[in-house]
Amino acid sequence: MISQNLKKYAEVIVKVGLNLQDNQELIITAPIESRPLVDLVTAEAYKAGSKLVTTFYVNENDIVNRLKYGTENTLDFAPDWLNSGIEKAFSDKAARLAIIGNNPELLKGFDTDKIGRISKANSKSRKGLMNLVTSSHSQWSIASYVTESWAKSVFSTMITSEAVDRLWNLVFSACRIDCENPIEEWKNHNEKLHIRTDILNEKNFKALRFLNDSTNLTVGLADNHIWCGGSKEGGSDVGFNANIPTEEVFTTPHRLNVNGTVSATKPLLFRGQKISGIKAVFSEGKIVDFSADEGYEAFKQLIETDEGAARIGEVALVPHSSPISASGVLYNETLYDENASCHIAQGQSYSTCMASGTEEELFGYGANKSNVHVDWMIGDGKTDVIGIHQDGTEEPIMISGEFVGDF
Amino acid sequence: MISQNLKKYAEVIVKVGLNLQDNQELIITAPIESRPLVDLVTAEAYKAGSKLVTTFYVNENDIVNRLKYGTENTLDFAPDWLNSGIEKAFSDKAARLAIIGNNPELLKGFDTDKIGRISKANSKSRKGLMNLVTSSHSQWSIASYVTESWAKSVFSTMITSEAVDRLWNLVFSACRIDCENPIEEWKNHNEKLHIRTDILNEKNFKALRFLNDSTNLTVGLADNHIWCGGSKEGGSDVGFNANIPTEEVFTTPHRLNVNGTVSATKPLLFRGQKISGIKAVFSEGKIVDFSADEGYEAFKQLIETDEGAARIGEVALVPHSSPISASGVLYNETLYDENASCHIAQGQSYSTCMASGTEEELFGYGANKSNVHVDWMIGDGKTDVIGIHQDGTEEPIMISGEFVGDF
Repeated sequence: MISQNLKKYAEVIVKVGLNLQDNQELIITAPIESRPLVDLVTAEAYKAGSKLVTTFYVNENDIVNRLKYGTENTLDFAPDWLNSGIEKAFSDKAARLAIIGNNPELLKGFDTDKIGRISKANSKSRKGLMNLVTSSHSQWSIASYVTESWAKSVFSTMITSEAVDRLWNLVFSACRIDCENPIEEWKNHNEKLHIRTDILNEKNFKALRFLNDSTNLTVGLADNHIWCGGSKEGGSDVGFNANIPTEEVFTTPHRLNVNGTVSATKPLLFRGQKISGIKAVFSEGKIVDFSADEGYEAFKQLIETDEGAARIGEVALVPHSSPISASGVLYNETLYDENASCHIAQGQSYSTCMASGTEEELFGYGANKSNVHVDWMIGDGKTDVIGIHQDGTEEPIMISGEFVGDF
Repeated sequence: MISQNLKKYAEVIVKVGLNLQDNQELIITAPIESRPLVDLVTAEAYKAGSKLVTTFYVNENDIVNRLKYGTENTLDFAPDWLNSGIEKAFSDKAARLAIIGNNPELLKGFDTDKIGRISKANSKSRKGLMNLVTSSHSQWSIASYVTESWAKSVFSTMITSEAVDRLWNLVFSACRIDCENPIEEWKNHNEKLHIRTDILNEKNFKALRFLNDSTNLTVGLADNHIWCGGSKEGGSDVGFNANIPTEEVFTTPHRLNVNGTVSATKPLLFRGQKISGIKAVFSEGKIVDFSADEGYEAFKQLIETDEGAARIGEVALVPHSSPISASGVLYNETLYDENASCHIAQGQSYSTCMASGTEEELFGYGANKSNVHVDWMIGDGKTDVIGIHQDGTEEPIMISGEFVGDF
């Protein structure tokens, strides 16, 4: 069953996620363990006319070896020679697929300062290529592969093979693979999300207010913000789905106009470390105080990465009834958990969620700049979301975690 | 046993093969299957002070998928963006490790023309980086990992696990791992090879004649040729062993002065295809006629790659009693088979086997230029090798496959 679905999954990734075009290059990063999926994706990509598929396999032991044995004074070094090569390929319109699924708790117990230095150096070195990705210069997509370590982190009391099977079934369900015609299902799903973003764009709210027992947060939206969701268009007007699965509609907050208190409703993983129970206070867009039940240092490191990391670059709405949320599972993987809950992201905003403009113009409208983009979840079944119009009047968008009215 | 030896093997690769220096980058290419060895090598490299280890894992299914499904008009495309990135790293003194061991007969049955186009495009795209490697701008080494497919191709009548164990034992023996102190053994081995190259360099032969029942080949040597063997020095005067294992001493033939007939004594693999029973006629350095029992088309493709591919760029002497030869096994892998037999190589010569000079000067001395460098075996237990002095007098170097006299 898994192998049949795996083939359909590879088809969805290439045709829906990437919408790979004739004669287009494809660059994949993937855990070594995901080789069976990479093989199927590679075959589909060549069938679609790709001129070359290049896969960079990630061996999660590499970072562990570096942390264990690497010399202290080498940790700020990143392979610019490789990242500028990849940047060149993206600027020449290569598509990008990232397959995720490594052990979510791999780096637990390692020195967070060392991890931070390595990550920061890599983010800086990858800035140019990530700018091309976040601005959707060409198509890109993120999908997942169920590794044993990921499955065991989600279902720790099951034996490994059961955990893997169970998680694959959830992945296939969330990604609309376990049906007669996944491509058609995705077409319908994209249409639904486009209707919702059209309405939100027409409303042109000035701000959103998130309310529940422990959250009262007003998120100003950037001037000229655009709501996105479902398939979008890359630099060559080719539609693609950046996340497989996806349930969210999302836009650009105003980096200077976020105020109030907010509590995380799910844990997140940052650089392989779990952060849970965040409570943060925003003032004029910036986190000025926070606490966490677990991973305080990691969250501190995140928001201190650079000037923009303490501000947010994305706000997203997801109904509590989304299929991923309905599974009731905590996936320990942002690609899934963010699609089970309303969320915000520390760091870089997406230029595709803004009307066109130079980088400086977008910054002037309120978009954010940072070397990081890390989502965390703030919605649940008790969360209300209120839209605040430009004239100050209010309109409910979600009540108790569900869209209401036109939405 | 294998896992203990694997650790010693990783140590030999890093300390003897690469002699990796403090703060030096390391770039590895390796079959996915060799991950256990890569993990150990990576750990050793960081212990040696490497500032970053980057591994490109090779999934042999990639090329199969491209051959099966790739569009005809895309086969001449190669990832210049990646190869120029790697070239940059090498020019900045990154060390290079290639781990080999993929299925030797992977491409059997596929269209040789398609394989040729892909290989040619890649060779061209990699020319800059390979120039840095062949000129030993910094340290580089080739070692092997016993994959199931390689082991089964060598011991086809054994069950897989037995074949793997048997081949590992041979690899550990050939690579001087199965002893108390491998590092010390390698030191002694290098010293022996250096004594032999010193004598050959002092003799400064004008030509070598290879003689046995089916070979009578006179190989003129390039002006200012240098005999190499065992550890050598890279661009930063750091000694390293380019091949693990190695038994050969080798130098640069004169690309215009090779004459006679020669028969292969072992099969070779070229682009995944087996070529056996080659009989070739050289005239003024060039192959003017040849036949083969198997792989005629592949050999034809090899020598037609470019102008230099029909001429030779290396000649090497290996005693028939070398440990690898003594095992009596055909390894289906040039790294091993070339160290069991005297051999020549079609294509590019090594500038390290020449006194210094510009590329044009070396060409004037008789060195060869090509995008390929492919060894094939011409020695056996009945082969004599005669040295021809500058004044035309002759002196036996090998009789019945063994060094004689001073050698």
